[in-house]
Formats: sequence, structure tokens, C-alpha cells
Amino acid sequence: MTPKRGFSVAEFQDRVAKAQSLMDRAGLAALLLTTEPEIRYYTGFQTRFWESPTRPWYVVIPGSGAPIAVIPAIGAHLMGQTWVEDIRTWDAPDYDDDGISLLADALIDVIPHTGPIGIADQMESHLRMPLADFATLKQRLGARPVQGDAAITRQLRLIKSDAEIAKIAHVCAIAGRAFEQVGSIAVQDTPLTQVFRNFQALCLHAGADWVPYLAGAAGQMGYGDVISPATETPLAQGDVLMLDTGAVWDGYFCDFDRNFSIGNPTAAVRDAHARLLTATQAGFEAAKPGATMADLFHAMNRHLGVTQGRLGHGLGMQLTEWPSIIPADKTPLAAGMVLTLEPVITLSDGRIMVHEENIVIADGGARYLSPPCQDLAVI
Amino acid sequence: MTPKRGFSVAEFQDRVAKAQSLMDRAGLAALLLTTEPEIRYYTGFQTRFWESPTRPWYVVIPGSGAPIAVIPAIGAHLMGQTWVEDIRTWDAPDYDDDGISLLADALIDVIPHTGPIGIADQMESHLRMPLADFATLKQRLGARPVQGDAAITRQLRLIKSDAEIAKIAHVCAIAGRAFEQVGSIAVQDTPLTQVFRNFQALCLHAGADWVPYLAGAAGQMGYGDVISPATETPLAQGDVLMLDTGAVWDGYFCDFDRNFSIGNPTAAVRDAHARLLTATQAGFEAAKPGATMADLFHAMNRHLGVTQGRLGHGLGMQLTEWPSIIPADKTPLAAGMVLTLEPVITLSDGRIMVHEENIVIADGGARYLSPPCQDLAVI
Repeated sequence: MTPKRGFSVAEFQDRVAKAQSLMDRAGLAALLLTTEPEIRYYTGFQTRFWESPTRPWYVVIPGSGAPIAVIPAIGAHLMGQTWVEDIRTWDAPDYDDDGISLLADALIDVIPHTGPIGIADQMESHLRMPLADFATLKQRLGARPVQGDAAITRQLRLIKSDAEIAKIAHVCAIAGRAFEQVGSIAVQDTPLTQVFRNFQALCLHAGADWVPYLAGAAGQMGYGDVISPATETPLAQGDVLMLDTGAVWDGYFCDFDRNFSIGNPTAAVRDAHARLLTATQAGFEAAKPGATMADLFHAMNRHLGVTQGRLGHGLGMQLTEWPSIIPADKTPLAAGMVLTLEPVITLSDGRIMVHEENIVIADGGARYLSPPCQDLAVI
Repeated sequence: MTPKRGFSVAEFQDRVAKAQSLMDRAGLAALLLTTEPEIRYYTGFQTRFWESPTRPWYVVIPGSGAPIAVIPAIGAHLMGQTWVEDIRTWDAPDYDDDGISLLADALIDVIPHTGPIGIADQMESHLRMPLADFATLKQRLGARPVQGDAAITRQLRLIKSDAEIAKIAHVCAIAGRAFEQVGSIAVQDTPLTQVFRNFQALCLHAGADWVPYLAGAAGQMGYGDVISPATETPLAQGDVLMLDTGAVWDGYFCDFDRNFSIGNPTAAVRDAHARLLTATQAGFEAAKPGATMADLFHAMNRHLGVTQGRLGHGLGMQLTEWPSIIPADKTPLAAGMVLTLEPVITLSDGRIMVHEENIVIADGGARYLSPPCQDLAVI
């Protein structure tokens, strides 16, 4: 069943209330948001217009009360359809003052005297505004220092609500249906560019809103990396084809891959793929509340023997999210976390194979969101 | 004819040489690049993996000599296929030091004593690295200040090479073929989400590598904005449907739209669309070397009477690029600039209609890259 688009106002209010409670604990008087997922998380503002770098977008979460949007006028109509009521706009781009006075005033409104403003500054974050404007803003804010946000938004986004999980499950099922049809598009002699184009179309026809991510490769005895765009090289007998997609439905991603053997696989490829599935299942079984991300790494790596890289990560509003399945990550698993399990095996000559599934952590253990792969598909 | 993928090494060397000449004039000892288009412009490193926020990517352009890539190990194989030879990697994510020591060392290597490092800080730019890491980096760099890059990369990217123009022309033709087929997918009672999905598939089948951007709307007497994602509302008789796409081929965008009347248009809609075409043609005729972006604004706005917003922008490696067709922009047009002309008309009740074409400036005047619209299409 297709989930409902969007979220209830109550869910957004709950997210803001939780942030404000954490802000209080961290001594922050406001949060300043500048990136797509941060702003969408608290407001529901969803547009692909972030693809344009021209305009900055700002949202202020005050210590109490509702968010304030300080945005280009071109976004007023769309933001007006969210639950945000305090929408302040300017005619961007403005070469003299691209929203900075308006933003400073909004922050000063909610912090009349002094108090720190939190911005995301930790790993996986960036500030989406021109640095010259950031310097001007800090100057305008005077006794209101801008500092790290204590990873408040990252912490909240780590645990998905039931409505969020339903969207991720939905897009995982969509990509699963597209993967089932790869046999019809990935035949010998087809250039990889054509396979990529047709696979994206399969995802769309299966119900994806769009396909922001597709990487993959094809080669004898595996492939060289997992982030490459397609080349014009045609598929050859004996190739292992890997397609790794991040399709989106209502702003939520899946992120999993499938391997296909063009013709019968060699024993080495068949064995490597079997070990990838075994490692995935070991990760799945270890993925219970209380275990750590490091525990997942070790449970999977017993079957792999890798010495670097990560074996999975968070998933949700972005293709990859905090945290990472690496030995250094001691984040405890908790119900509502959505993760990818992404084991990698090195074959000879720097050739690798990668498998990936998506899971959600529940009280009793994990549940697959992607339809788990049973065997290496042969085309 | 399909252009060749990629660029010659000579073209990358030329870009770097031009940057180094401008760096010398601006007194910069190195450039530090952190974003996708900046890094791709000088290196040719092309991947959709930027969709993942986990890892930062760094490239250093020294005052002389070739670029140095300081990147996560996962990108070594792909970067190794570019012309860049000095590739330094770390096993990211590293929770203790996510490439910052490696990056500081690379900068210190090329700036042994003292000298400023330029980073993009102007409008339309941002720094794609965690702010906490940026603070650490600046500390490590000691007497080597980090400052604005005098918009060097923006200035170079403004003038496209023949090879770049060929890629943009190619993807414009692809989207043009997709738009010709909209009549087959946008029939009455089809939900807009379905129209969006099918239109993206049309772009892929017409030859697009991927479709990073699609916005649009449908409504009686125009629409409320031009940045919205699709709703589930079905197309109705009398609707004006607008689809605005940024499709990509080999890393280069088109960005143009088409309007469609579902059934016969009202006189007001027909008249508004005719004025949009007239304004576009006026912009096209004014688009000669030596005219300014402001001149284009006024040439188009004589037919529109808008009081805010912009009427077009640069186009290339990104959906929108510097500069903007607004009264404040005095950038002189020059051969090799690729622009969108994007007039807007307000109908009654805050309803608007927008038309958009893509052009390239040549010595004698402009040339259309998108197949110019002749009339409002009726479905």
C-alpha cells in the first residue's frame, strides 16, 4: 500500500519540541538551518530546486515557539503550503544584501539580548551559505555567538518515526521491483550507459519519484570501484554487473545494490557473492538494540577480512546518513534506526564485489526493508 | 552527433594555467576546492557519489604545477582515471582526523612558508566541509591565511569552451525530443506525479544520463510557483501544465521548460504565452557581446512588466550558474557564455506562467541551444 505523502503537523511539532529540549540542555538560544535535509526535517519544505546553487535558504528554530523561514521570494508559495507560518522573504539574488539583514533580524527577534546560535559543524555536515555572508552575519549578531549545534538535528534524525520508515520501505519495494527486471535491459553487448538509463526508467515506472543516485560497474571478476558513472563499454560474457541505486519516494531514499552475472559466473565470483550474502545475514542477526555499529562491523567482517572502508551506514532523507558501520563507531543501535548493510570483498587484482541491503532496527531485532537477495542473478 | 565524453588533458591544463595566472594577479598561493563543480572543472572527476554527504573531497591548485587530490580512499580508483597524478587518500570516515592533517600537509607542501589560500566565498558558493574541520585546518595552516578566491573559478567557468557548449547543446536536444512527446503522457486525469515520472523516463530514453531536476505545476490560468514537486492532483481540462527540466549529459545541464494547455487555452493564457515568447525573442536579439545582463533584463521586461525576480541565468555544469538576468547585474556578455532566458508573467490571482530557453553567446549574437518554442502546445 502506498503511504500518505507528507507528515502530520503533530509530527513536525514533535520534532521541533524535541530539538528545543536538546537546545535547552546544550544552552543554545536558537538553531540556524541552511541545508536541504535540515530544513525539510523541521518544516516539510520539499523541492528539487536545491539543485540550483543561486539562492540560500534559512530557517531559525527559536528556543521556544515555531520555526521562522527566511527565504527567497521564489519559495514563498511552496513554503506557505507547509505548517510554517512565519515566512520572511527577500527578492533573491540581491547583490547588496542577499537575505543577511533579514536573517540577522529574525535571530535578534528571538534572542533579544545574548545567547548562542547553533549550526551543524560536525562530520557529514556543511554550511550552505556563502562564507562572506556568514562573516557578515556573525558581525551583525554581536553578542550572540554562532557555535556548533551539539549535533542535535543529527541525533533526532537518527531515530526514524513510523511514517518515515513506511516511506523508506515503500521506496525499497519500488527499487526491488526494478531490480527484478534488470534481465530485460542488461543483455550482452549493451553499453553500460544504456543499462543505466534503462534502469533509472525501470525505477520510475516502478513508482520512484526520481532517481538521484545510480552508480555501478561491470567487469570480469568484479569491478574497480562502486562510485563510477557508466562508461560506453558494452556488457561482455562473464562480466559481473553491479547496479547501486538511491531512488526516492516523497523525499526518502533507498540505497541498495544487486550483482548480476552476464552468463555463467566463475566459481570465484559465485563464492565471493555467497560470502557477501553470509556477511549480510551475520550483520542482520547482530543488528539488535544495544549492539553497537562496531559490533555490526565485526560480525560482518568475520566473513570478509577487510582492513579499511565501512560496511554500511544510516539511511533516510539522504542516501547516506550518520552513523557508519566502522570499528570506531560505538553508536548503540536503537529501535527506529534505518541502516544499510554493505559488505565488500576483494577478489584478485584489486577487483571488488559489493552487496547491500537496507534494514530497520526494531525492539526484537532487525527487519529487512529491501527484499533480501537470495542468490547471484544470472542473465 | 553525440559529442565525445570527457575533455582532453590539454583543456584541463589550460583551465589550471588560466586559474594560476589569475591567482598570481590576486596574490593567492593556492586554491582549495571542496565542491563538486569546482573539483570536476579542474580534474574531470565525475561521480554521482556527491549525493552522499559522508565524505569531504579536497583538491589543491598550487601556484604552479598540477592539481593535488586529497580524497577518501573510496575515490582513488576513479580519480586515478583522470589526468590528476598526485592523489593522496585516507580511509574515510576517520572520526579522529577526517583528512585534515593530510590536507594541511598538502597545502604546506606547496606553500612552504607563508601565503594566502583562496576558497570560494562569494554568492552562489559554499564550503563543502564540516565547519569544525575548517577551524582545525586554519589552525594547522598557521601563517597561511585562508581568504576569498577572488571568484577565480566562477570567472573561468563563465566562458564555456567549444567542447562544453557541444555537451550543453546535446542535452538541450535530448530534452527537446522528450518535450515533443509530452502529449503522449500528459493526458487529462493523469496525476501530476505520474506525468513527472513518465517525463523523466522520456528524457532518459531520449538519451539523458540522468535527470537531476524536474519541477512543474498545472492549474487553471497558470500556476502558483515554478519550484514545486508534483502533487497527486490529476490533470484537468483547461489546466496549463508546465514542465521545467534540468537533464544532464556527461555532467552538463540543460534548463528549459515548456507549457501545455490541456484542451483549448483561454484567450488570457494564449495571450500570456505569446507575450512570453515575444519577451524571449527580445532577450535573444539583445544578447550580443558587449550588452550587459541588465540590458537583457530590460529588453525582456518591456514585454512583461515584472517588478521582482530574475529573467534568466548562467547554465553549464550546474542547473543555474552565475550571472543573473537582473537589473543589478552589469556583467558584459561575451562569446562562450551560455544563458537561460526565463521570462515570467503574472496572470490574475497570483497565478504565473514562465517560459524558458537556452542560448549561447557568439561573436555575431546569440544562438539557441534549446529548440525554440514556436507556439503554446495544446494537448
